[in-house]
Amino acid sequence: MLVRTCLALALLIALPAIADEAKKTPTPKELLAKASPAEWRTPDPKNLVYMDLPQGRVILELAQDWSPEHAANIRTLIREHYFDGTQVIRVQDNFVTQWGDPDGDDKKKAKSLGTAKQTLPPEFTRKGGSYTFTPLPDGDVYAPEVGFSEGFPVARDTKAGEAWIAHCYGTVGVARDTGAETGNGSSLYAIIGQAPRNLDRNLAVAGKVLKGMDILSAYPRGGEPMGFYDAPSQRVTIRSVRLAADLPAAERTPIQVLRTDSKTFAALVEAKRNRRDDFYTRPAGKIDLCNINVPVRDPTKKP
Amino acid sequence: MLVRTCLALALLIALPAIADEAKKTPTPKELLAKASPAEWRTPDPKNLVYMDLPQGRVILELAQDWSPEHAANIRTLIREHYFDGTQVIRVQDNFVTQWGDPDGDDKKKAKSLGTAKQTLPPEFTRKGGSYTFTPLPDGDVYAPEVGFSEGFPVARDTKAGEAWIAHCYGTVGVARDTGAETGNGSSLYAIIGQAPRNLDRNLAVAGKVLKGMDILSAYPRGGEPMGFYDAPSQRVTIRSVRLAADLPAAERTPIQVLRTDSKTFAALVEAKRNRRDDFYTRPAGKIDLCNINVPVRDPTKKP
Repeated sequence: MLVRTCLALALLIALPAIADEAKKTPTPKELLAKASPAEWRTPDPKNLVYMDLPQGRVILELAQDWSPEHAANIRTLIREHYFDGTQVIRVQDNFVTQWGDPDGDDKKKAKSLGTAKQTLPPEFTRKGGSYTFTPLPDGDVYAPEVGFSEGFPVARDTKAGEAWIAHCYGTVGVARDTGAETGNGSSLYAIIGQAPRNLDRNLAVAGKVLKGMDILSAYPRGGEPMGFYDAPSQRVTIRSVRLAADLPAAERTPIQVLRTDSKTFAALVEAKRNRRDDFYTRPAGKIDLCNINVPVRDPTKKP
Repeated sequence: MLVRTCLALALLIALPAIADEAKKTPTPKELLAKASPAEWRTPDPKNLVYMDLPQGRVILELAQDWSPEHAANIRTLIREHYFDGTQVIRVQDNFVTQWGDPDGDDKKKAKSLGTAKQTLPPEFTRKGGSYTFTPLPDGDVYAPEVGFSEGFPVARDTKAGEAWIAHCYGTVGVARDTGAETGNGSSLYAIIGQAPRNLDRNLAVAGKVLKGMDILSAYPRGGEPMGFYDAPSQRVTIRSVRLAADLPAAERTPIQVLRTDSKTFAALVEAKRNRRDDFYTRPAGKIDLCNINVPVRDPTKKP
């Protein structure tokens, strides 16, 4: 009798709690607020690039493990202040914002690359090797498998033994001429529209934008073919590009990225696959690789 | 002997031609230039909306066959000049640009809808009925099947007997509150980033932008949550919104859309699935629904 009463009482207490939980699935904001400090990753300052534009600071993370020779060359260019005074030269709607030396294609007028290399091996994919990989459950139109690796959206073909960073919104790639080895990192582009996944495996990915896409995506589109600006006056001049590692700690921008192999990230992906808020009448039940934003935070601010 | 000689001659003439053709697969521009006049569709002026902004004219095509009640209500709003003086109120990066009455949520201050309806049935999907459908060959993460129907990117689930216009870049949707019937077309949004396909089947699609995405996508992003502008001064005021059908022919903007059931469209899709130009070392062999732009032209201009 006591057992039965206790059980009944327990049910009385437990049932509304369960019902409440089902009704009140945590929102992405609540999930993030509850993430443990260990779930946040502090990027290596050697891979953190600050690009200061008149509209504010854009922060990129170099994909050191995916295109090491490009990362090294870009670091050399940054340390020799190559990018200071270069410009945003191209904004093609639903495609890319590209920056670099507007005279880069003119051998006589092009800015010197200093001690950086003029050509690099085409690090378009990564063959073999080990890397963390958190797969996504819903497949992909372009690749046999997709998921995340330390914050980067990754596609792979395990049969072919190849993996690569996908061209999603915010991915930063290395512009090049027709020859596969002609990219050197002196001109980069960020994806500002629908993921142009047909670029995958055809260009080296330098990294991704962690902060400042709202700046890079809102520049006026260029009037020339491919979105190049008609007149030099339309170009935005880059004040400076620096590596976080080269600045005193006080001048660095505090930034952390949610680990993509964390429980909170998995919960966020699931929350986006199946939106539980009242607005959505039919949760999608699916998610595409490039529809997932990896959260970034300023660790000095309270969530 | 004559036959053999003739054959040999024919081969001599034919072979280089074949080799040239293989090398010189026509570019998208060349394919478009060769499209026959019958492959171009002139949208019904009753479905063509001109939204005049300080930066230029945006042209939308209403999806009459997919959300007829919404199309009718939007026409009523346009004809009673509801939109003139309304504003771009929200620009959320990698998501939407939304316009309408900034006081629309405030019952006391909201602009009158005139004779337009306040609520509409939720035309989120199309059940049964017949429509043209040109399927794409590479599948989709979100739906069993995808393709095009008279220029609109469409997803469908034939088992469930449902089809809907997908939220791709440039798709125009009907903003609403939590209730499914609260949308009425007085506030619309255009997708300006990675296709948020989780909106599919949760909102009515009003149509798509045929021209002017370069304007809608380049406005400064709003600083409030969800991209609403902080200050009224940040909002861009819409000069006027008119139906092409209501203007004299001389004031209409000539525009045609490539038929998505045409041979040229099929060739363009294939050219994008497998880029043949020298730049691409590895054609993707695949294409996602929202990676395909439906070409638009001014028929009064030579290609």
